[in-house]
Amino acid sequence: MSELKNDRFLRALMRQPVDRTPIWMMRQAGRYLPEYRASRSQAGDFMSLCKNADLACEVTIQPLDRFPLDAAILFSDILTIPDALGLGLYFETGEGPRFKKTIRTEQDVANLGIVNTETDLDYVLKAVSTIRHELNGRVPLIGFSGSPWTLATYMVEGGSSKDFRHAKAMLYGQPDVMHELLHKLALSVTDYLNKQILAGAQAVQIFDTWGGALAHNAYLEFSLKYMKQIVDGLIRDHDGRRVPVILFTKGAGQWLEAMADTGADALGLDWTTDIADARRRIGDKVALQGNMDPSVLYASPANIRAEVKRILDGYGQGTGHIFNLGHGIHQFADPAHAKAFVEAVVELSPEYHR
Amino acid sequence: MSELKNDRFLRALMRQPVDRTPIWMMRQAGRYLPEYRASRSQAGDFMSLCKNADLACEVTIQPLDRFPLDAAILFSDILTIPDALGLGLYFETGEGPRFKKTIRTEQDVANLGIVNTETDLDYVLKAVSTIRHELNGRVPLIGFSGSPWTLATYMVEGGSSKDFRHAKAMLYGQPDVMHELLHKLALSVTDYLNKQILAGAQAVQIFDTWGGALAHNAYLEFSLKYMKQIVDGLIRDHDGRRVPVILFTKGAGQWLEAMADTGADALGLDWTTDIADARRRIGDKVALQGNMDPSVLYASPANIRAEVKRILDGYGQGTGHIFNLGHGIHQFADPAHAKAFVEAVVELSPEYHR
Repeated sequence: MSELKNDRFLRALMRQPVDRTPIWMMRQAGRYLPEYRASRSQAGDFMSLCKNADLACEVTIQPLDRFPLDAAILFSDILTIPDALGLGLYFETGEGPRFKKTIRTEQDVANLGIVNTETDLDYVLKAVSTIRHELNGRVPLIGFSGSPWTLATYMVEGGSSKDFRHAKAMLYGQPDVMHELLHKLALSVTDYLNKQILAGAQAVQIFDTWGGALAHNAYLEFSLKYMKQIVDGLIRDHDGRRVPVILFTKGAGQWLEAMADTGADALGLDWTTDIADARRRIGDKVALQGNMDPSVLYASPANIRAEVKRILDGYGQGTGHIFNLGHGIHQFADPAHAKAFVEAVVELSPEYHR
Repeated sequence: MSELKNDRFLRALMRQPVDRTPIWMMRQAGRYLPEYRASRSQAGDFMSLCKNADLACEVTIQPLDRFPLDAAILFSDILTIPDALGLGLYFETGEGPRFKKTIRTEQDVANLGIVNTETDLDYVLKAVSTIRHELNGRVPLIGFSGSPWTLATYMVEGGSSKDFRHAKAMLYGQPDVMHELLHKLALSVTDYLNKQILAGAQAVQIFDTWGGALAHNAYLEFSLKYMKQIVDGLIRDHDGRRVPVILFTKGAGQWLEAMADTGADALGLDWTTDIADARRRIGDKVALQGNMDPSVLYASPANIRAEVKRILDGYGQGTGHIFNLGHGIHQFADPAHAKAFVEAVVELSPEYHR
């Protein structure tokens, strides 16, 4: 593998000194970019784009050619594991992800296997190695997976949900069945992330999109516990370098202390958390990634720059901050505003690293 | 007005001693009850039910006849004010509320008036006085309104939203326009709640359903500030008794200290907050209302009872706790499970008030 030319992102994750605050954007390869839309229509549907290593590589690198970003993230979907387990993922226009099969009963859970990453998710591993090769050391590559709880919500509901009626009915009504499902998913996610690391991912992020929908104690028992199991099972050094792990639970601002105790290197923050407060609470244990509201990109470049400064001031002096949005960039964001955002971080952040 | 026979709810809101923890349920008059569905089909559509004082009274009292609840809440909608301001509220099946007109520009905001409660919301005041009379002192009656920010999101978006694209574009792109809109709404809400109090409401709750979608600093500036203005403007004593105010922002667990500083008597907690932690943080300033996940009602009565005990243990000994769900009861909840929930609170809570 070629030498890494920009390791600012990996260094900040380890809370080592950097020259400026590194930045990447969740969903940085996405519909807001016209070149992405062109690649996607070439591929056909969304999953065909994920399954074509060359096109997945192409869209992964597109935002790096536009903006001075410090990391690339594998282009894929959080629902590849349930798809590989035979649930039949598909997308209906404007409806979000759907599964042909659902997991609702004890028998459904008993019948569920552990994913065979090499055979059933080989397209992901091929995309990782293709992207890593194509990046040629330009920036580090981030691998990722959905969290067990987040995957379980889609598998039980059969798609997106507003209130997680069926998943919560299982959690509160048949907690042992839900635990068995989460246990199996944690084993699958651990294997999946380790194989991504072996294929070339230099950091990994666990996306717990729906952990914040849980009660405090249910979050600890049904989401965080399984993410900790995954963190414990990951390859943490590869190719002579530490492979940092980032946990991101949307809506978890009240639970940061517990998250920081998992052994993760960094926590992703959504925009509802005051980053100054988060640093006071857990900044001696983990790095912090975030946390501008993606909707700030609807404002003028001047207003965007002011918001970037506010967040940099909030975190304050020193390393341990990776700038990001608090969630994925919106499809209606103007690429020129995304550029203004990234450039503001590049231009304003050096003074916080004197 | 007849004498109040059960003032447990009002006493707990003032943190005065009670014999047991009072309980009511958000959306306790609703679709999960067959008798509600019968009244609604008699009325025709949802707004016709709200606008018919006798039927609104009937559905308000229905849950009291089933369960030993300690408060009634006015049956109405949070969007009556924008409707009265001429936006044309309507409901499409399965789609949630919609407005015929939206508020998107500076001129739209400039053209917007302050609500004339007596003329344009007379049906609400008539419902309040009818219900109060019909309750005949059985339990106190709660009045309510949506918060300015929550009303603004619906008015700007034209209905429900997942990401509040237009409302946040206004907030970040034209903050002065958003402030003017919120200012006008705060004046309307203040008048609306005061008129409800004069008509017979014995406590009021401000529902800030969407405050939790804001960044920390944006919440303080665009939601909480206007709720504080409302609290400052409310009639706090009427008919020889204190009229307590409850603030409920869904997703505000990180911001409870700021909320407790508004002068509200109580804060509603959603289920993501650990009530023990909330009491440690602000229990010396305000009463706490909540906070069981409504989805617990999908579990068995035994599991529901265990969850009630867990929350009672969390709050601990003494007054200042009003039991409730962390959000409205789901339409698919089984009334028998709602009964098991209410009865568990009635049976288990006396030992916390020795």
